[in-house]
Amino acid sequence: MKISDFKKKQLRDGFKNVSELRQDLVSGDWMVVATGRAKRPHMFAKTGKKKFDQSIKDCPFEDPQKTGHEEPLLIYYEDSKRRKVKGIKKLVRDWSIQVIKNRFPALGPGDCSEKYKEGPYTLMDGSGFHEIIITRDHKKHLALMSLDKVEEVVHVFQERYLTLMEHRCVNYIFIFHNHGIEAGATIFHPHSQLIALPILPADVRRDLSGAKEYHEKHRKCVHCQMTEWEKEERRCIFQNEHFVVFSPFVPRVNFEIRIYPRKHQSHFEKMSEVERKYFAEALWQALFRLYKGLKDPAYNFFIHTAPCDGKNYDYYHWHAEILPKTNIWAGIELGTGVEVIMVKPEEVAKFLRNQKIG
Amino acid sequence: MKISDFKKKQLRDGFKNVSELRQDLVSGDWMVVATGRAKRPHMFAKTGKKKFDQSIKDCPFEDPQKTGHEEPLLIYYEDSKRRKVKGIKKLVRDWSIQVIKNRFPALGPGDCSEKYKEGPYTLMDGSGFHEIIITRDHKKHLALMSLDKVEEVVHVFQERYLTLMEHRCVNYIFIFHNHGIEAGATIFHPHSQLIALPILPADVRRDLSGAKEYHEKHRKCVHCQMTEWEKEERRCIFQNEHFVVFSPFVPRVNFEIRIYPRKHQSHFEKMSEVERKYFAEALWQALFRLYKGLKDPAYNFFIHTAPCDGKNYDYYHWHAEILPKTNIWAGIELGTGVEVIMVKPEEVAKFLRNQKIG
Repeated sequence: MKISDFKKKQLRDGFKNVSELRQDLVSGDWMVVATGRAKRPHMFAKTGKKKFDQSIKDCPFEDPQKTGHEEPLLIYYEDSKRRKVKGIKKLVRDWSIQVIKNRFPALGPGDCSEKYKEGPYTLMDGSGFHEIIITRDHKKHLALMSLDKVEEVVHVFQERYLTLMEHRCVNYIFIFHNHGIEAGATIFHPHSQLIALPILPADVRRDLSGAKEYHEKHRKCVHCQMTEWEKEERRCIFQNEHFVVFSPFVPRVNFEIRIYPRKHQSHFEKMSEVERKYFAEALWQALFRLYKGLKDPAYNFFIHTAPCDGKNYDYYHWHAEILPKTNIWAGIELGTGVEVIMVKPEEVAKFLRNQKIG
Repeated sequence: MKISDFKKKQLRDGFKNVSELRQDLVSGDWMVVATGRAKRPHMFAKTGKKKFDQSIKDCPFEDPQKTGHEEPLLIYYEDSKRRKVKGIKKLVRDWSIQVIKNRFPALGPGDCSEKYKEGPYTLMDGSGFHEIIITRDHKKHLALMSLDKVEEVVHVFQERYLTLMEHRCVNYIFIFHNHGIEAGATIFHPHSQLIALPILPADVRRDLSGAKEYHEKHRKCVHCQMTEWEKEERRCIFQNEHFVVFSPFVPRVNFEIRIYPRKHQSHFEKMSEVERKYFAEALWQALFRLYKGLKDPAYNFFIHTAPCDGKNYDYYHWHAEILPKTNIWAGIELGTGVEVIMVKPEEVAKFLRNQKIG
């Protein structure tokens, strides 16, 4: 289908396109052009420091429904753990965690995407979901939460994952968390995000194909091998019955931390209730040690798991990555894909192991 | 060779290792761990805003030899264009451009690297070169220079490239420029950098293999095809006899600009004197329009060219990329490799085309 027919079809369907996915000719990677949250070019002009409002007064997530957000897609309550109600507006009080739609989504709901051509290029609708997971306390971010609360957050991730993966157009679900303005957080109030995509993101595609190639060559999981090695090594930071936390031999950024399940498991959402408790502990240990050692650094945290496109990914091993922001990516990082690491992962692990807990 | 033998060999050779290259098990990418510029872990603790000293008073590049840098590797003089002298200390005055060694190099000179094993991992010495190209004026960055001066800078890039590519351990030379603190510049005084590496950086390797695959499939150069298409398109910003400047259909960041030679040419360093004049114009046009339109934004600029490892890269097409920094990379970008673009490249091009020049 040509682009003009595509646009006509959209108009005919009354479809409001919030974004486009465009495929790079050289790499084959899909990029998101979010026309729905588009700004005019001149609005990008440099006009001094951006404000990062930390106060509770104008916080849009303190009482999301009062600041114009729709009713939650999922709520957990303070008084009764696990009790949750969907879609009942009047019950949005005493909440502990709530999931809402992002008002400025990178992708928007729509028909399953078809591919279209524009000259030599391929593109498609940016149809998908973009949700925000908000915890109640304005200041208590993950490192400062109780273990129970961290576990609840992880539980919410799983629940929303299981719901959205049923959508026939969703092929990948990406869960992430930005902490601190240097890590790209635009709202101070602690929140995580979830994006459900029709395509596999570039880095995920590469991670999958690397794992697959290794598996074909060595008949074993590359992540199992790494975890097996690291748990005995000087790069290990913490471990419990089900998870190993370590500073990887080849970090992408200074102070990077990875969390792997010991048992080979390709799908994050299939983690059991027991495993979830141990994962919450591992995550908290990693974040609290960073918080203490680096005095509340900004960081990005995300989960790399197998796609939900129905194909076989048994060779994959899900894991979480924490990337502290201690450095601005400059020409060398952007042009080569390589950050110059200035602190050895062996020293990072020792430093974080030595932080006093509790 | 085992890691312990490797270390012993190094000590025996009196070799001061400034960095290690470590290969990722999953992706095969090489990362730099710069132990020579290493900091202690606690020095990464968040301690308020970093200072970006813009004053001329303490500028280390105002008179590099007075601030402890060695004598230049190459000098161009103000009074006599093209006249240059290498290694004559007393002539370091009235300079217009000088190239010096980076005092905190990401890679350091040494023997050609051998690969070593540590458990399941592969690593090698970080041997290579890291140089800084400084222009004299403290405030006149590329967008504010005369065309002649921009051309001289490009000429210096070529000269250093041609010298370093002769080193038998150098397989890739990466030339880049960071402008503004948000783009990772740590020194205000305008300067470019050059890194000569024993390996091919991850992004370059991917760019090469994408171009190669396309060439094998379609029997034509993917970059020629793009340039051919874009020069007629609404994404074109500027063009002259030898170069096309455009906002790519699939940008990696907001406001990305690419500069391609019209003629298929794989090696940047082989650009002729005439072509260099046109390239300088294209580069200046791109940077000046950005400077005007976005009010001096921070940016990274780099050159992607074919490796100098002696293999055949006829299928490749060198080009320059300019990545303005209008956004902080957060969890989504770091975990998926995909920046959510908020301004359409078609609008970017129109906006930049409409800036008044001169």
